This record gives sequence, structure tokens and C-alpha cells, in this order.
Amino acid sequence: MNILVTLNSNYVKPLKIMLKSLFLNNEGEVFSIYLMHSSLSDEELEDLNSYIKIHGSELIVVDVDSDYFADAPVLLHYPKEMYYRLLAHKFLPQDLDRILYLDPDILVINPIRELYYTDIEEYLYAAAYHNVISIKGINKLRLIPYEIDAYYNSGVLLMNLELHRQLIDEQPIYEFVEKNRAKLIMPDQDILNALYSKKIKSLDEKLYNYDARYYIYYKIMSNGLCDMDYVIRNTVILHFCGKKKPWKKDYRGKFHSLYKHYEKLALD
Amino acid sequence: MNILVTLNSNYVKPLKIMLKSLFLNNEGEVFSIYLMHSSLSDEELEDLNSYIKIHGSELIVVDVDSDYFADAPVLLHYPKEMYYRLLAHKFLPQDLDRILYLDPDILVINPIRELYYTDIEEYLYAAAYHNVISIKGINKLRLIPYEIDAYYNSGVLLMNLELHRQLIDEQPIYEFVEKNRAKLIMPDQDILNALYSKKIKSLDEKLYNYDARYYIYYKIMSNGLCDMDYVIRNTVILHFCGKKKPWKKDYRGKFHSLYKHYEKLALD
Repeated sequence: MNILVTLNSNYVKPLKIMLKSLFLNNEGEVFSIYLMHSSLSDEELEDLNSYIKIHGSELIVVDVDSDYFADAPVLLHYPKEMYYRLLAHKFLPQDLDRILYLDPDILVINPIRELYYTDIEEYLYAAAYHNVISIKGINKLRLIPYEIDAYYNSGVLLMNLELHRQLIDEQPIYEFVEKNRAKLIMPDQDILNALYSKKIKSLDEKLYNYDARYYIYYKIMSNGLCDMDYVIRNTVILHFCGKKKPWKKDYRGKFHSLYKHYEKLALD
Repeated sequence: MNILVTLNSNYVKPLKIMLKSLFLNNEGEVFSIYLMHSSLSDEELEDLNSYIKIHGSELIVVDVDSDYFADAPVLLHYPKEMYYRLLAHKFLPQDLDRILYLDPDILVINPIRELYYTDIEEYLYAAAYHNVISIKGINKLRLIPYEIDAYYNSGVLLMNLELHRQLIDEQPIYEFVEKNRAKLIMPDQDILNALYSKKIKSLDEKLYNYDARYYIYYKIMSNGLCDMDYVIRNTVILHFCGKKKPWKKDYRGKFHSLYKHYEKLALD
């Protein structure tokens, strides 16, 4: 299975934790981990490479031609790396038909095979949106006049690369960014939703993009079905969204002990 | 290493979870699990036996002669099984020099070797007491006039069996129970403390009997040192004390997700 990650040095540690959880809960699977980056040192790359190798998978560092983004509008705090996820098909091997993009701030706690082979023939992506009112409402309002039914989270994206090569190009993306500079808060996610929302297959967030901040919300909305037992047995992707991250000192939350458990396994 | 467990059918599931955590975090060690019970079915025993065997350890069902307790005073809600832990040396092989008693409502999340080989030559037991004011105060008051410095928790007990054979007999225990019937709340633990408190080597509760209800208390009392990171990396025994148990529906707590994680690994 093909996995895409894009990151800078600050995220090497969480990436290793995410990968550890992926490997442990998907025994017998072999992964090709495609990495798009612009700032990792040779030492960090070598470390990642051997880490992935001892788990029986392979790291492929994607060659990103920096000239490619010469004309791209750049936003404060969001350098050109924000386009990596959206334009990955320009740099990935042309014979790949699908890839699963994963943020580094997640844990994969169950087998990922079913997600990976989701039928997306007629879609650009499969993704989940977070239905918590506070998230949904604000982001839909913010992106008016773009008609979006749901505001998808871009942290877990199953990509139909064949269709990307036919339908996604940099010019409309750059134009959108120029025109909406002032409004963009999470630029890559905003672009995804404003331009491609109608071509995204919707995934069950409880299974494939469970927002770790909202345990009580999920439990109540499911009439108690989605309790801790359900999550541990069924949820595939736990996503530690928001500013507070579980590898930081001040974190707390329902999945803190579980995260630290994987962290220990990953870094010892 | 010798491990002692005593239980009834209601605790077979938590026992398997406890053992799973013990095996996973002590790879390469071989355990002899001594089981004292009075109500497990042949089927349950056979299931436990093969479960332990596939993890490379062995189950030894201890032959408890029920006539032995014919004269023992019995308390409401506490049948004769309450003496198993205290009088185990009467039934265990006479050549065992030490054994580690473990409650089934615990997780062993780090290597247990250092605890097991604690020097207890001059002690009957090694155990930890819970220093939370509410627990300590009440139990010390309750057991007046028995002079106890600390009220040890009997859920994790390293036993010096050689010394037990010389110093622990049923008569003083039965007498104590007869005399204090009205006061006893947790009889086996009360007996341990009233009669043997001075011969118990004190263990660090944060490492060897961490009460999972008191995360915030431990963190504050250690000036922040004993945070989640510390616990996951250093604590050997997490003890789910109290009435609310993590395998029950209504449970919540800081280690809920971690417990459910081990439960999944144990029961799948």
C-alpha cells in the first residue's frame, strides 16, 4: 500500500509514532512510504529510512523540484509546502494509481486495508468531515460563496491519482489562493474544500478520522454506541486535531495514555 | 518468575488482560502462574491453560484442600477464599522461595524483573501503600489499636515464602478476624496490615502500585514529574482500584484507552 506523508523536521518524532502504530496494527502488510519534504537533514532521512526498513516497509523520498513552485502565491506562515499534498501527483511516480495521505498527528489503531481499497473510481478523494457543529459551521461560512456541503478534513486523504492527473492543476489553485488570501486559515484544507468538495467521497469520521478531542460528542451522538470499546476495536484512524498535541508537555485527553504507549514503543 | 493469582469466574477476563500486559512487556521471561481458585470450571481452566501456554509460560493450578479452612471464621460477602492470599505458602510447592501476588485488576506496563528480585530477606512482604490522604487516614483510624505506620495495599504483594513458612500461621489470623468482625471492610488487606505491617518492605507506589484513579494527585505531589510520559515509561504496575472497573461499561478515567487497548490484544 502506498502512504504519502509531507513534513518538516518538527514532525519527525510524531511521524515515527504514527508509522509505529500503522505497522503494529497492520502486520503482514508492506508499505511504500512516500515522503515529500523540503527541510529534513540527511541524518534525519537516514534515520527514517532505517526505521521503516526494520519494520519491513520502504521509504521513498519524493524528488520535489523547487522551481516548480516559483510562481506560486505564498502566504504568511504557509510556505510553498502547503501545496505538496494537493499537487503530489505531479511528483509521484506516474504509474501509481492510488495513495493514502496521512497527517503525522494520528494513530492508526486498526487495519487500514478496507480504507485503502475503498472504491473511489468516480472521485478525486475519499475523506471525512468533522460533524461537530462548531467546526462545521464556521468553516462553511468562511468559504462562502464556494458551495460546499461539508468541510472535509484534509488530514486523511485517499487519493485517486489517475483522476488527479486529469483534473487537478496548479493554475486554478494559485488563482483561488490569490483571490482569497485574506480568508484562508488552513489553506490546503480550504483549497481542497472550495475547489474539490463535490468530488470527495465521504468517509465515516468515527472510523477513518476520529477527532480525539470529541470523545463525549461521538458517544452522545451515537447513543452510547461509540464508546471507548467501540473506538479501540473499530476506529482505524485517531486524529489528534487542534493546537494541543499529545507529544507536548501540556496535553491531556482521553487518548493520552494510548498515545504515550505508542510513543514509547516507537522511540525506545 | 513465580506469579500468584487467586480468583473466581468473574475475573477470568481481567486476568487474561493482566497476563497479556505482563507477557507483552516482559518478552523473553518465562512465568509460572500459580492459580488458587474454588469455582472455575474445567473449561475455563483449560482455556486459561492454553492461553498461558501460547505465550510461552505455564499455568499451575494449586490444589487447595477445602477441609483446611473448616474452622476458619467466615464473613458475610467474604468467603474462605479471602485467606488464600495470606496462607498461600501452605499450598504452594515447599521449595518456592518467593512469589509475586498480583490482583487481576491491574496492567503490567513495564518489565517486572526489578520488582521481583527486590531484596526481602528480612521482610515477609514487599508492598506499597497509597498515600492519598483519604485512603490512608480512614484505614489507619479504622484499625486502631493495631499500630500501623502505613496501610499497605494488598493488590501487589511480593512474598518471602521461606519466612512465611516460619512466621505465618492460620490461628492468629482466625483470632484476629473473630475479634474484629465488625470493623473489617477489606478483610485480607486489613489482616495483612494489622498483623504484619511492621514486616513489610515499602515499595514506591508510583512504580509498583500506581492507583489509576489518582493521576492528578500523583502529578501534583511530584511537582509535575510523574506525568503521563513518566507513567508510561516507568510505572510497572497500574492498579485499577476501587469499584469502577475498566472492563465495565460505565468506566472512565485517564487510562481507559490504554486498558481497552490491552483488552483488545488479550481477547481477540
